[in-house]
Amino acid sequence: MMIILRPNTPQDKIELLKKVINNFGGVEIQMIQGADTTILGLAGDTTTIDAGAIEVFDFVDRIMKVAEPYKKVNRKFHPESTIVKVGDREIGGKKLAIMAGPCSIESEEQILGVARDVKRSGAGFLRGGAFKPRSSPYAFQGLGLDGLELLKMASRKTGLPIVSEIMSSEHIDKFVEDVDIIQVGARNMQNFILLKELSHIRKPILLKRGISATIEEFLMAAEYLMAGGNDQIILCERGIRTFETYTRNTLDLSAIPIIKRQTHLPIVVDPSHGTGLWWMVESMSKAAIAAGADGLIIEVHNDPQNAKCDGQQSITPDVFAALMKKLALIAQVEDREI
Amino acid sequence: MMIILRPNTPQDKIELLKKVINNFGGVEIQMIQGADTTILGLAGDTTTIDAGAIEVFDFVDRIMKVAEPYKKVNRKFHPESTIVKVGDREIGGKKLAIMAGPCSIESEEQILGVARDVKRSGAGFLRGGAFKPRSSPYAFQGLGLDGLELLKMASRKTGLPIVSEIMSSEHIDKFVEDVDIIQVGARNMQNFILLKELSHIRKPILLKRGISATIEEFLMAAEYLMAGGNDQIILCERGIRTFETYTRNTLDLSAIPIIKRQTHLPIVVDPSHGTGLWWMVESMSKAAIAAGADGLIIEVHNDPQNAKCDGQQSITPDVFAALMKKLALIAQVEDREI
Amino acid sequence: MMIILRPNTPQDKIELLKKVINNFGGVEIQMIQGADTTILGLAGDTTTIDAGAIEVFDFVDRIMKVAEPYKKVNRKFHPESTIVKVGDREIGGKKLAIMAGPCSIESEEQILGVARDVKRSGAGFLRGGAFKPRSSPYAFQGLGLDGLELLKMASRKTGLPIVSEIMSSEHIDKFVEDVDIIQVGARNMQNFILLKELSHIRKPILLKRGISATIEEFLMAAEYLMAGGNDQIILCERGIRTFETYTRNTLDLSAIPIIKRQTHLPIVVDPSHGTGLWWMVESMSKAAIAAGADGLIIEVHNDPQNAKCDGQQSITPDVFAALMKKLALIAQVEDREI
Amino acid sequence: MMIILRPNTPQDKIELLKKVINNFGGVEIQMIQGADTTILGLAGDTTTIDAGAIEVFDFVDRIMKVAEPYKKVNRKFHPESTIVKVGDREIGGKKLAIMAGPCSIESEEQILGVARDVKRSGAGFLRGGAFKPRSSPYAFQGLGLDGLELLKMASRKTGLPIVSEIMSSEHIDKFVEDVDIIQVGARNMQNFILLKELSHIRKPILLKRGISATIEEFLMAAEYLMAGGNDQIILCERGIRTFETYTRNTLDLSAIPIIKRQTHLPIVVDPSHGTGLWWMVESMSKAAIAAGADGLIIEVHNDPQNAKCDGQQSITPDVFAALMKKLALIAQVEDREI
Repeated sequence: MMIILRPNTPQDKIELLKKVINNFGGVEIQMIQGADTTILGLAGDTTTIDAGAIEVFDFVDRIMKVAEPYKKVNRKFHPESTIVKVGDREIGGKKLAIMAGPCSIESEEQILGVARDVKRSGAGFLRGGAFKPRSSPYAFQGLGLDGLELLKMASRKTGLPIVSEIMSSEHIDKFVEDVDIIQVGARNMQNFILLKELSHIRKPILLKRGISATIEEFLMAAEYLMAGGNDQIILCERGIRTFETYTRNTLDLSAIPIIKRQTHLPIVVDPSHGTGLWWMVESMSKAAIAAGADGLIIEVHNDPQNAKCDGQQSITPDVFAALMKKLALIAQVEDREI
Repeated sequence: MMIILRPNTPQDKIELLKKVINNFGGVEIQMIQGADTTILGLAGDTTTIDAGAIEVFDFVDRIMKVAEPYKKVNRKFHPESTIVKVGDREIGGKKLAIMAGPCSIESEEQILGVARDVKRSGAGFLRGGAFKPRSSPYAFQGLGLDGLELLKMASRKTGLPIVSEIMSSEHIDKFVEDVDIIQVGARNMQNFILLKELSHIRKPILLKRGISATIEEFLMAAEYLMAGGNDQIILCERGIRTFETYTRNTLDLSAIPIIKRQTHLPIVVDPSHGTGLWWMVESMSKAAIAAGADGLIIEVHNDPQNAKCDGQQSITPDVFAALMKKLALIAQVEDREI
Repeated sequence: MMIILRPNTPQDKIELLKKVINNFGGVEIQMIQGADTTILGLAGDTTTIDAGAIEVFDFVDRIMKVAEPYKKVNRKFHPESTIVKVGDREIGGKKLAIMAGPCSIESEEQILGVARDVKRSGAGFLRGGAFKPRSSPYAFQGLGLDGLELLKMASRKTGLPIVSEIMSSEHIDKFVEDVDIIQVGARNMQNFILLKELSHIRKPILLKRGISATIEEFLMAAEYLMAGGNDQIILCERGIRTFETYTRNTLDLSAIPIIKRQTHLPIVVDPSHGTGLWWMVESMSKAAIAAGADGLIIEVHNDPQNAKCDGQQSITPDVFAALMKKLALIAQVEDREI
Repeated sequence: MMIILRPNTPQDKIELLKKVINNFGGVEIQMIQGADTTILGLAGDTTTIDAGAIEVFDFVDRIMKVAEPYKKVNRKFHPESTIVKVGDREIGGKKLAIMAGPCSIESEEQILGVARDVKRSGAGFLRGGAFKPRSSPYAFQGLGLDGLELLKMASRKTGLPIVSEIMSSEHIDKFVEDVDIIQVGARNMQNFILLKELSHIRKPILLKRGISATIEEFLMAAEYLMAGGNDQIILCERGIRTFETYTRNTLDLSAIPIIKRQTHLPIVVDPSHGTGLWWMVESMSKAAIAAGADGLIIEVHNDPQNAKCDGQQSITPDVFAALMKKLALIAQVEDREI
């Protein structure tokens, strides 16, 4: 941490500040005297220092954080890539993790039909929403626990492990029992109560990036999960909010190489929510794999026109089957397989 | 709702689409034939129509929503301004609602000292955080229920009603009993589970705008609360995320006249979180009142240098006292009082 | 164009508005009567109608534009993809257009060395800046016309056509004579004076997207060029400004399929400016081609540590050579070649 | 400037980097050795150091700039506030500078009528566009030099100094002769060629903030003007681009106290472009003055419904007259006058 002082800060103020810093403990202070500026450089573990308590002094111009605030997710302290295991399947290994299925579970026929279709095309995981966060209170909110039962049934019949979104701490026990990968949605990325509770379980978590989360904030949310002891974390880029209105969100594929550099956790991409338009799913899926993603989570619906949610961003099983063939070729270039 | 079709869409496709729309029921379809474009105009209650089920057709170019998706918060259907009542105090009336207090409750001495100071300067409400959402799992997370007890004590001794943030549904009963205004933080603005539960209680809610929420999304979150029957909603602008990095957030004061026009609910402004810098609180507070805000929620700390959170954005009781005098003059110009 | 009126607008006001609209001429007005809303639908050529003159009425709630404001760049009116020709090379054809070279031309040795290196690896075009837009007046501003001479020399000796950025109308004649593709930089995307003058020449223009330009604004800038008769336009995505600070800009690869759908013009991607970090160039280049881009423009420098600008985002000739081999494999999957 | 190295960077690499830095000259290097990180702190004049030439090394993790890159506009080196003088009027003094007039000059009758009206209400300056930057090539582009003549005439008849936007270097001589304050529009804020030429003249410049310019970039554009010797610079906040679509731009009033702190230059606010909606002009004008702005630039049109541009954001002379009365009251609170 670097503390930049305002010009001509008197010595006694600097001493006062040093005392405040030393009260936090664990750091060594070095002074850099520039032409117009004095800087205090703090070496040591600065994660316990509250920047606010320093910025509060009016002779402090600015604070610059040097060390990343995340530790357990940081590749610096854990150089090897993490591979998350779900039964005999892996996320972050050589084989790409392709998760596919409908936005929401609607009926036995629907979920089983889609499950069989995506399995046939090579998907490794079945996704499906039982609880749906919707921006309108008047929109379909999912089948709830009944939906979860249908999803389990489809999993049993196809052998595909399942991914589903949790929206409330009260369902944790149920999800731990029923679901293979618990998804935390973008809107809950900073629901710290939920994160803390999920940090204590031993199930893989698929953590979606919030639509206005910086990569640092995204990794800090993962740090919440790892701080409590859960180290089976899969990150998911799903589009950020920008000024562009053509798409629902702007899919940030540049997050992939950054996350690969900064953390050891696997990262998958959601081209369906990331664009909000079904006809963009193919090109963005290919681009994500070419950029180094460890997998994809794609909305597939057998009858998008009658889908209860997000029909406009769902592809049909036929389109998915064709996409998988193209992805296999891109994967090969990247020395991955599908 | 307007449905813009792609050029040369054949008649049978249009008929198919009409059938899909009619299945939703309750709307009348009118066709507008342009030079290159055919448009279907939907009149009636379109809130039940899922746009996704229409955008899914590849001959649909785009959908445009004409009616606002919010009803109960919409001033069109409720022209009179809502005044929220807390005991003998009002939010949205002639008197401005000034809420002040520390970011987090730290000790009996601290909260009582600040409460007495801000009361003396004319604040109408005491704010204080017991549960703190923090981006780092290693940062101070608040005193929890113990903090709430201290806040109640300060309220009893000063007579100030209290505002505090709820982070989890499990605390609702406690908050209903102990707190006068329940705050929903920016990060929980789209925690729909929490919103739904809060919609069933009968306590004023102070709903903060999410940092990347459009005004429409902000009002839809308020709609969630009102849809369940809670009509004592106070909106709070607290800064949005933009590309500018000088401030923590960009305080969007233009939201004030817009919200006044679109909804009947009162709106207050948080200049402390909105800027993240204590020396900007004065100018932004004055600007907010000049722009027509119904009140302010300001972080005041008796000892910002030792604050356990957000010291850099807290003002001292002395600065607050001086600010209140200036606000009184601005309020007068606006035909309000403090 | 749809004009949404406020509830209960009296008939005489509607008649007044109709008269205003008819004064613009060329459109037919249709009325849609909803439950709460009246809408006027305008069919015909609405590009001459000034929305401001309609929004000014206080009984007008909002205006929605239905037709895209661009015509000549619109794929609707020009379904075939445009292929820009430069000598025997093409941009937008089966062969990908790879443009490579240093940020700025610094010396004969430098530009010739890089030109030979990138040619050997398969680049089709040589890029190099003679005039450099720099955010600081104290930074290196390019060699100017001397730089252009060096670039021409390198072109003569290698046979590579050249791409260089124009910053002022006064250099148009010189650029028309010397340069094969004239680049308009992101900061000048809405320099309408410059665009108008370039619309009258007959040279290919590479138009970069402004960092905060929506895709519609980007295409309107291209429309300026085509409106004056220049139809050899190449679009270039090079990153947009978002809240994320890890990268200089956020490369918007989703712009590729959108631009392919909305316009007939070719699109290339600049992964160097789009990320600002040399180690991200490889993954973003591959992703761009996988997403369907027609080419790339990449900064290559033989000695990045001593580059006069943008060293941090330049790759070396060796890295470029390795990249080209990987791109060839991705191109093959896309049925393109390099 | 702080250079953060990656963990375990070997000593010989550090020595190499030191040599590169010393080649730039004028700085002293200090080393800070942390637990995991080594940092090089550079003291002295770092404006000549090209960060790119340092970031290019793969053992450099990141660079942090400590000193602001602007010098001449920096309040640190020029503590007194600048007052720009135009005849007997001032911008930045006790009296607020109110600039009013139509978006574009349309006719003698129009400009003279508006000029007389705004003068009567107390405006100090007449604004009017002769050259109009329009996002569509098919929209009205202004009367050009004829417009300038009409503006001069209105100035002669009313005594109001005039503000008008320049779009091209070729008109500089004309503008220096005819116009009292030369406006540089938001889209040209980084037209460095234009800025450099305007830096050599001796006329006040009103520099508008680009819609996606950070405050630092805004001040660097002003630095371009001052670097060439022009010290009569007026800054103008006019809204930035965010994700919010209700308004054309998001007016960033928090820029006012920041700019007052960072620079000695006066700042005015444009509530018309800043919101794009005439009914928001009043509240945003009052807020701007309450936040400490030195003036306003407001679009006033005698017949907004027939305005050739931006009618929707223009207020009528009557509304302007009423607004001026309210502004006078706010000004008084701020110890300013109108």
